[in-house]
Amino acid sequence: MPELQKRLSKFMESLALGDLMLVVGVSGGPDSLALLHGLAAVMEGEHVVVAHLNHGLRGRAVEDAEFVRKTAVSLNLPHYIETIDVADWAAQHHLSLEEAGRILRYRFLAEKARECGAGAVVVGHHADDQTETVLMHLLRGSGLSGLRGMQMVRPLPEANDLLLIRPFLHTTRNEIEQYCKQHNLQPVQDESNENVDFFRNRIRHQLLPLLSAYNPRIKNRLQNLAEIVAADYELLDQLLLEAWSDLLIKHDGSWLQFDKAKWQKLPLSLQRSTLRYGVKQIRPFQSNIGFRTIEQARTMIEKGQVGSQATLPGETSLLNGYEVITIADDLAQVPHDLPLLLQDEPQVLTIPGEIRLNNDWVLQAKQLESFDFTQIENNPDDWQALVDVQTDH
Amino acid sequence: MPELQKRLSKFMESLALGDLMLVVGVSGGPDSLALLHGLAAVMEGEHVVVAHLNHGLRGRAVEDAEFVRKTAVSLNLPHYIETIDVADWAAQHHLSLEEAGRILRYRFLAEKARECGAGAVVVGHHADDQTETVLMHLLRGSGLSGLRGMQMVRPLPEANDLLLIRPFLHTTRNEIEQYCKQHNLQPVQDESNENVDFFRNRIRHQLLPLLSAYNPRIKNRLQNLAEIVAADYELLDQLLLEAWSDLLIKHDGSWLQFDKAKWQKLPLSLQRSTLRYGVKQIRPFQSNIGFRTIEQARTMIEKGQVGSQATLPGETSLLNGYEVITIADDLAQVPHDLPLLLQDEPQVLTIPGEIRLNNDWVLQAKQLESFDFTQIENNPDDWQALVDVQTDH
Repeated sequence: MPELQKRLSKFMESLALGDLMLVVGVSGGPDSLALLHGLAAVMEGEHVVVAHLNHGLRGRAVEDAEFVRKTAVSLNLPHYIETIDVADWAAQHHLSLEEAGRILRYRFLAEKARECGAGAVVVGHHADDQTETVLMHLLRGSGLSGLRGMQMVRPLPEANDLLLIRPFLHTTRNEIEQYCKQHNLQPVQDESNENVDFFRNRIRHQLLPLLSAYNPRIKNRLQNLAEIVAADYELLDQLLLEAWSDLLIKHDGSWLQFDKAKWQKLPLSLQRSTLRYGVKQIRPFQSNIGFRTIEQARTMIEKGQVGSQATLPGETSLLNGYEVITIADDLAQVPHDLPLLLQDEPQVLTIPGEIRLNNDWVLQAKQLESFDFTQIENNPDDWQALVDVQTDH
Repeated sequence: MPELQKRLSKFMESLALGDLMLVVGVSGGPDSLALLHGLAAVMEGEHVVVAHLNHGLRGRAVEDAEFVRKTAVSLNLPHYIETIDVADWAAQHHLSLEEAGRILRYRFLAEKARECGAGAVVVGHHADDQTETVLMHLLRGSGLSGLRGMQMVRPLPEANDLLLIRPFLHTTRNEIEQYCKQHNLQPVQDESNENVDFFRNRIRHQLLPLLSAYNPRIKNRLQNLAEIVAADYELLDQLLLEAWSDLLIKHDGSWLQFDKAKWQKLPLSLQRSTLRYGVKQIRPFQSNIGFRTIEQARTMIEKGQVGSQATLPGETSLLNGYEVITIADDLAQVPHDLPLLLQDEPQVLTIPGEIRLNNDWVLQAKQLESFDFTQIENNPDDWQALVDVQTDH
């Protein structure tokens, strides 16, 4: 058995998927073609289904779809070949072609997996894709989450009950091309080579060769980094979820509140990640949560006045309460249980007089003409305080 | 007060150092000169001591030392100016000039701090140094530890009771040069600009301008990454120390043993970090502990045979025992409490006969001529087993 098939077989076995059916995403390029060919050789045929989405973008798209269909037929595998106008959908949703293509592709694969009762989707991302992904995240900005790159096994985006499997993540582009040659596979030209993803292509063809001059093993280096960070991230993520379930007081769709004192006792790393997580709960599709914005909110909670507010990513707001931190789509719609000053500055309270607070709360002062010590001692109203004031007038 | 002094003053105050005396490392370049000038302005004079080490490397070294001396005198500050032959010391210790210079500089600063009773050493590393440091670690390879870059406050290397403070770590080279101009400071040319550290200079002058084409805010981006990772690393490091003290069974200088079952239950991130930490305990000065070597050792413990060995960085060895993992300078010198097969393959034990095991253990088989069931039931010797063997001869 060729080395690449051996590795593929060993990896698929290690997943212990049993009788699980697999949908293989096949563009027709070298990566997915080698993947399909390898899987067909090492798995029992009835477990493999081919899926190809024609993006409707390229002149050769129809020929590519036909090529994938023929390949599936020659391997005697069931197949789904469908077409969608990615450009149209991207324009409708104000997304880049790349982003739209990615979303529609995974949706299509998830849909087909459900249709044929498959439990997992398999795609051809390889070690060089991983290197480029890590570099893209490094350049564009991200914490550990981005430096992890892609995972070999994870839940499928937008279909968390299905698995997304990338068996080639430790296999290089070179090894895949060798495999194609050895088995006389004639892949089509991959889309990514035609500037669909311009930034990734610059990284592949310009930046990586340059970085090799600084470290000839740079690709290896970035792949190792992704592996190291993936495990570190997983542990930190678990700690985050534990901390969050301890902090959270209430989550009501468009707003949530968590315990300020507990949050303040968290280590810095978890103070940051819980704030990010809070925003994610209110804005699940907010992908860009900037470090500086989170830091400003964190500093405000640590050092700012009670009642102060900060703007968070996705136009959510944070309110720094006495005992509770609120993150909300719209703070005005959060039922405040506690009165807060509306301004940051100290306010003068005359006697008699009153100050308007948030949400129709009023702070009222009046002088008692007479009083009864027993009544003061047993003060039955939590919202009433009796104070001995020295009046000079 | 100029902005840079305000920031410096606020930061130094936040450290709440009280009456602690500071030794400022001054090369005479813009960074350390601005730092000294700023500190002299915002701190009370009697708390600041100047220290300059002449590396004996450059033509202008003597003039530089004289410049620092004059500057200290003009600021009315006590000062230490000393000379050492870095090139000679580097050759003796088989180190690069850069590495030797770094070690000798910190040793000198620590020595002078002790001499004058100072509690901290202050150096001029700034935000651009930080960017370059993070990139160097990215290129050369490292996990989170390297991506943290430098810290604003940490224990001084080789003198853990003293603090190393870097007040300019969030201040850019540009801001420092502006400050020098505004205050008419005439710094000498910094050594690092004269190819003492060739790799760093290539990163500064070639790679960073290039990366700006991919993201104009790349420096900011890498500084944020360092801040994010520093907090994540701190938390993971704390978890590592907790896990380690739970795992460790015995540490006897040149070898240590830890609990295998407990280690196997750790999350992947801590399995890796405890193995690295174990090597560090045996080889404190081993700076390069490769990811792949650690992964091989980890896989061997998880999947290898009991009794198998792996080579770890710094020519240390790991022994995969029944219940205990041993890391040692030399496994032969570890007193084994349990017998192990010397070979990986199964051995034939004849009756009567014996097999030699590790450390003078012997597995001996003989046939009993007669036996007593009560004696078998009460078998008083843990190292003796009585077996019913079907003998055909």
